Amino acid sequence: MSKTHPNIGAYLIRRLQDYGVRHVFGIPGDYVLGFYQMLEKSPIRVIGVTREDGAGFAADAYARVNGIGAVCVTYCVGGLNVVNAIAGAYAEKSPVVVLTGSPGMRERVNDPMLHHKVRTFSTQKEIFEKITAAAVVLDDPDLAFRQIDDTLAACWRLKRPVYIELPRDMVDVVPRFPSRVVQPKEASDRQALREALTETVKWLNAARCPVILADVEVHRYGLWRELAQFVNRTGIPVAATLLGKSVISERHPRYIGVYEGAMGRPDVQRFVEQSDCLLMLGTFLTDMNLGIYTANLDRAHSIEATSEKIQLRHHRYTGILFTDFMRALLRAPIRKRSFPIPRPGNGAARSGARGVGEGTIDVKQLFLRLNDWLEDSMVVISDVGVCLFGAIDLVIHRGTEFLAPAYYTSMGFAVPAALGAQLANPKLRPVVLVGDGAFQMTGTELSTIVRLGLNPIVIVLNNRGYTTERFILEGPFNDITEWRYENLPALLGSGWGCCVRTGAEFESAWQKARANRQGFSLLNIILDKRDCSAGLHRLGERLAAKLRKRARR
Amino acid sequence: MSKTHPNIGAYLIRRLQDYGVRHVFGIPGDYVLGFYQMLEKSPIRVIGVTREDGAGFAADAYARVNGIGAVCVTYCVGGLNVVNAIAGAYAEKSPVVVLTGSPGMRERVNDPMLHHKVRTFSTQKEIFEKITAAAVVLDDPDLAFRQIDDTLAACWRLKRPVYIELPRDMVDVVPRFPSRVVQPKEASDRQALREALTETVKWLNAARCPVILADVEVHRYGLWRELAQFVNRTGIPVAATLLGKSVISERHPRYIGVYEGAMGRPDVQRFVEQSDCLLMLGTFLTDMNLGIYTANLDRAHSIEATSEKIQLRHHRYTGILFTDFMRALLRAPIRKRSFPIPRPGNGAARSGARGVGEGTIDVKQLFLRLNDWLEDSMVVISDVGVCLFGAIDLVIHRGTEFLAPAYYTSMGFAVPAALGAQLANPKLRPVVLVGDGAFQMTGTELSTIVRLGLNPIVIVLNNRGYTTERFILEGPFNDITEWRYENLPALLGSGWGCCVRTGAEFESAWQKARANRQGFSLLNIILDKRDCSAGLHRLGERLAAKLRKRARR
Repeated sequence: MSKTHPNIGAYLIRRLQDYGVRHVFGIPGDYVLGFYQMLEKSPIRVIGVTREDGAGFAADAYARVNGIGAVCVTYCVGGLNVVNAIAGAYAEKSPVVVLTGSPGMRERVNDPMLHHKVRTFSTQKEIFEKITAAAVVLDDPDLAFRQIDDTLAACWRLKRPVYIELPRDMVDVVPRFPSRVVQPKEASDRQALREALTETVKWLNAARCPVILADVEVHRYGLWRELAQFVNRTGIPVAATLLGKSVISERHPRYIGVYEGAMGRPDVQRFVEQSDCLLMLGTFLTDMNLGIYTANLDRAHSIEATSEKIQLRHHRYTGILFTDFMRALLRAPIRKRSFPIPRPGNGAARSGARGVGEGTIDVKQLFLRLNDWLEDSMVVISDVGVCLFGAIDLVIHRGTEFLAPAYYTSMGFAVPAALGAQLANPKLRPVVLVGDGAFQMTGTELSTIVRLGLNPIVIVLNNRGYTTERFILEGPFNDITEWRYENLPALLGSGWGCCVRTGAEFESAWQKARANRQGFSLLNIILDKRDCSAGLHRLGERLAAKLRKRARR
Repeated sequence: MSKTHPNIGAYLIRRLQDYGVRHVFGIPGDYVLGFYQMLEKSPIRVIGVTREDGAGFAADAYARVNGIGAVCVTYCVGGLNVVNAIAGAYAEKSPVVVLTGSPGMRERVNDPMLHHKVRTFSTQKEIFEKITAAAVVLDDPDLAFRQIDDTLAACWRLKRPVYIELPRDMVDVVPRFPSRVVQPKEASDRQALREALTETVKWLNAARCPVILADVEVHRYGLWRELAQFVNRTGIPVAATLLGKSVISERHPRYIGVYEGAMGRPDVQRFVEQSDCLLMLGTFLTDMNLGIYTANLDRAHSIEATSEKIQLRHHRYTGILFTDFMRALLRAPIRKRSFPIPRPGNGAARSGARGVGEGTIDVKQLFLRLNDWLEDSMVVISDVGVCLFGAIDLVIHRGTEFLAPAYYTSMGFAVPAALGAQLANPKLRPVVLVGDGAFQMTGTELSTIVRLGLNPIVIVLNNRGYTTERFILEGPFNDITEWRYENLPALLGSGWGCCVRTGAEFESAWQKARANRQGFSLLNIILDKRDCSAGLHRLGERLAAKLRKRARR
């Protein structure tokens, strides 16, 4: 080996560490075994999972908590199993590095039919080009270091997944003349920034009732402290979107709750929509965030600052970094005022857990009680469906401690995400909210959680099917086999599970789960088939109306 | 609705039925619910599964048994979860129709961020273009019927997956002027066929020791009866590849066994490789079929007939359909002779299951005993790894009753495939051979098998990890959590399971499983970590040599 340069595999590992990757999720296979061995000997810890899609979701959650995450999978049979999870990370801007092995370049001569090959040797890369910010094959030693640098930089800058393919005969290759380029540091156009800021400050100071709507990019770009400081300094009330839930502590006195058009709390909707200066920070204007387009946000009264644009009313500023804008805003001369707010925090969920106990548990009671029990050290991880809409009203104690695929809404995110989140920050204990349908997809990833001795509390909302869909269009296709979820520990040989039908049972089960710090706890909560939060009920009606509109044509 | 034309959804369903689709596998979602409801009211039965990849594998196996299969999934979060299974169907030529819903065309105006969208509205289609023979979006009512016709015809003709995307606002649309084109019937060039046949017949009649090597296309194009007749008529000995295993009954007196270069039985290798006229029918020259290129097949002594080419020695004939060639061969004047053959059938596995009982069970004993027990009504479905290489020596009684992903080799195929195979032919009882690693990926699809009351016998080869990889490169990444697989019935609320450590326990468990016709049976066979068939041992050594070669550079 050269004294001056590391080989390609070693360089890749070093650069991953530079960005903060401490764990890599995946499953080995012959095309990636050499690199696996190299990873195993490095400070990075390899986390073997049961299925590749679990690795994808775990790495996504890890990235959300840690700042960046990575999967390492084999060629095609591994890589093509993470496509959905990586697509979700793309859609929701979660920076996950996809590392994959592939047939060696020398094996590809004459285009042989090697196992795992689909159509051509580049099929896998071509697929990932559609769902990543950058996709490279390290097939040229002298270019490899630069490709690694560029690709990881893109992942970090754009907060989106990237794809790095390492043909197995390139892992050990030491480049003779590696190409390196000093990445030019991104910078904002100072004059544009000054002008945008002046206009923003003037408007905010003049506004009668300014409101902040904070979303996911505040989290992804690590600006949640700046956001809280800005709110403290100016006194401007702040709402979050569903995807951005917990970018600010939901106990903050200026926090008014989750805004999502007509699907959220009416007082929050009114308050946000009647603002004469709505400052949208890091927002994704998705159908889910906008309450299936029941939101009524007026561009003429809005400032939108994201990594993609800074827009005031109907004009855009270009060349301004979102991070620079946020930081400049924090130092800007905005006078502190006191504004009346509807109800602080997630007011709706504050009371009401009274007098329950013997009665059958329902979704409303479940979330009311959970709200009383959540602790500072808990991270709430929600899957989609009934649990996501119920979780809207949970009061998350500290910032950034709510994770959910609230835009891409892929089922099966939550259990593998608990694995990723707890490895990223072992001080956080995951409370997983997951429907039965989603649990059947990826719940067995608790197998990996057993091996690592992690201790999430998994709450399965068992309503015997796809309840969200029942509100849109009912049919036998919405029914699923009812598992005895509490028996999962018998299959995995570890963990603790129980079945919950009443409020009293829920309380006792929660206390046991809370005390069980040695492994996972699973609560199988038996719910009525059509029981759901008011928010989901409203969503279902909206989506059903869309279907009926189609049918009336 | 028009009196003259059906709507697009109804037309699609009718055409699927024309091709023989009786079951569709999938999971609903809001973008596909309207079409789901239409399917539900049609004669086609919708089979809801736990995960979309299970739907993909089930449809693949269904297609192998039935001639064509289909999945129906929602946009992106569903579709992108079947990418790996469909890629496998592409690689191994299994005709699966991917049906998917998507946002309505009217919803796409102004490019809104609708849930499940990744980058653009066409991202999903662009991905499937890489792994299907044809991919269409039915976005123009007047073209839709023709697109459906063309796409299904391509699926049938090429025996590869196709993709049909149905925006949700198109399902009910009745085309005013539907475009239909009478598909020109494919035909061979008669003169080319005659010339190729004359040359083939002359050579076969002159050959000293002709041998047939039969592979998967004989099965896909439904020519297994023709193959058996040809062998009966000419007396030419026949071997099968691993992927083609069971295209001819392995009890046929002219059948000599599975050929796979140096990895198979040495006598079979010798016999095939010394032939002076090797007639390769429907062959895939993959690394797996060629014993990781230890095969020594001489083009100068070979005739290769597939759907892609007819090649004699070093020259190719074009314009000849594989089916026409096979049928013409059957009627051609080839004289019947009697050739000596090494050992009929899979001789190697015939004897030896003597005196076992109290001793610990090992892979060799497992397959010897299974060989004694297999019945005519059983279809053997193998996952990859130890079980696939062990299954090589099983003697499959009737034709086409062995299913395995023997080229693409994706783990997790077997359990969902049992679902598809038994629905395609309820007279077949699946015997599933699956490693513990693969079982952890998709074994919970037994959930669907429970709901449908199917009764596969599932044999889990439990060696606590990825044993195939241990032979290539050992490391902690090859270990997995050991589940108590026999407890799966406790989770699913149905089925029967047990743990097997000795030959006697295996016999008693098999008898109980055989008698349990009401549901699935699961045998957790405890094996040594490094126990495997001789074939796999040889494979591991080959693959390890490739890795070492890399390391020595």
